[in-house]
Amino acid sequence: MTDMTPLLAVDGGGTSCRFALIWEGQRLEHEGPGANLTSDFDGAVAALWEGLEALSAKAGVRLDVLAEVPTYLGLAGMIKPELGSRLADAIPLARLRVQEDRPAAVVGALGLRRGVVAGLGTGSFVARQSAGGMAFVGGHGLVLGDDASGAWMGRSLLRQSLRASEGMCDATELTREVIDTFGGASEIILYAQAARPVDFARLAPMVVAAAEAEDAVAVALLQDGAAYIERALLVLGWRAGEAFCLLGGVANAYAGYLGVEIQASLVEPEGRALDGALVLAERFAAEVTA
Amino acid sequence: MTDMTPLLAVDGGGTSCRFALIWEGQRLEHEGPGANLTSDFDGAVAALWEGLEALSAKAGVRLDVLAEVPTYLGLAGMIKPELGSRLADAIPLARLRVQEDRPAAVVGALGLRRGVVAGLGTGSFVARQSAGGMAFVGGHGLVLGDDASGAWMGRSLLRQSLRASEGMCDATELTREVIDTFGGASEIILYAQAARPVDFARLAPMVVAAAEAEDAVAVALLQDGAAYIERALLVLGWRAGEAFCLLGGVANAYAGYLGVEIQASLVEPEGRALDGALVLAERFAAEVTA
Repeated sequence: MTDMTPLLAVDGGGTSCRFALIWEGQRLEHEGPGANLTSDFDGAVAALWEGLEALSAKAGVRLDVLAEVPTYLGLAGMIKPELGSRLADAIPLARLRVQEDRPAAVVGALGLRRGVVAGLGTGSFVARQSAGGMAFVGGHGLVLGDDASGAWMGRSLLRQSLRASEGMCDATELTREVIDTFGGASEIILYAQAARPVDFARLAPMVVAAAEAEDAVAVALLQDGAAYIERALLVLGWRAGEAFCLLGGVANAYAGYLGVEIQASLVEPEGRALDGALVLAERFAAEVTA
Repeated sequence: MTDMTPLLAVDGGGTSCRFALIWEGQRLEHEGPGANLTSDFDGAVAALWEGLEALSAKAGVRLDVLAEVPTYLGLAGMIKPELGSRLADAIPLARLRVQEDRPAAVVGALGLRRGVVAGLGTGSFVARQSAGGMAFVGGHGLVLGDDASGAWMGRSLLRQSLRASEGMCDATELTREVIDTFGGASEIILYAQAARPVDFARLAPMVVAAAEAEDAVAVALLQDGAAYIERALLVLGWRAGEAFCLLGGVANAYAGYLGVEIQASLVEPEGRALDGALVLAERFAAEVTA
């Protein structure tokens, strides 16, 4: 995938940032704290400085030399071009491409193949890679979207449990378990007021386990999530036979709920997002040195 | 409704607290800042002290005398009995009943009649008053509920506009207007991350106006909201002919979307929540002096 050309790549997510440096034919890696350009710009800058210094030490190369290496950053919260310009002013890298974190995940999973990736972790997105480039659906954060994600699963579970407790839908073993575990409806309301997406996502395994036991509320949630994924595939122009990758912590829960043609196209991801970031760094290097 | 017995009543909402004092046959009122026992306990205590001192001055009666008057407090955020006990320790009132804010709204609207009230302001609830007392559905706050409310309407509008912008549903004049007004999808995502329910509710009039012009997304939203209200009526055991009151800033938007039997049962509210709080204060006074 990469020759002797020096390259630097970062897969920066909200939970951790992964760095890879190709230097004198060696691949060096580092993992540091998370970064999100929108919710904590200064924290993201600090995380990148920390990672660059760690790589500099690991490779035994001065930071001002490292700064000349063509670099690709895939960063969570990179939702506006202005953020990329601000970032470029705050870190020493001279040859830099900044994008959101999804393209690296897509290229990591599919390599150069045409196909669709559904990323279903704490948040969610669906992306298609084709000859024309990449197209995306979803994401948007939990308040307005992130359908089918782990956070969406957990929040939906609490919502349905409250609805069941007041007779707005049928109660099941799962909804009764939720009410009992929290200690009543008012405790659930309090929890939800302060919960971050990651707090909701912690409840997702309850849904997955209950669906395996055929709990009606859990099964309906996974059916809703799968319908969202299928709709996104349709909108993105996915065609039967084209590779389809499921990524992320709750991805496997949906496999059995998708249409047979989609299931038949399921492939394992080729690599991680960091591998994809390195491919994109190589592509960027070819552009800037061409 | 009230005789010469001194009574004190408070209708305490998140935006403002309304106080009424019956003293020597006169009704005195005061309106002060909002209170929510769950999200800001100390602020609620301060708002109540301020109101009691204002009434004390208005009525020309010392605070320690006022403190003996039977008092009914209907307060937003009163979701656990412990909060009522903590509050009783923090204010000087000797004869006090503390409840959430919905019963006063129901009694204010229906008086002593049997019937259903749908409260559709920034948040939402549906309640039925019958010989057996009151039963409630909904509320729960915007994260998990408040279906059909103004905040729900505004948030749903942003969600559908994002979905339309990526082809997940049909775009309409309204969804294009929203994308243009905000200046793109990423600006909507940023807005939603920080928005409080009241910020979403500010967008509700766009939905109501567009529905009047038969915009498909707006009409579908009001149909969803109306279906929720109808389901709540069913769950609460409402029967055709029983009074049905719509309260709150977005209430009127739904009238035309409800079933004909429900529309035929629509009645104007008898009074305000503060009137209901006074009725409940009178009932409390009769209990403690019996």
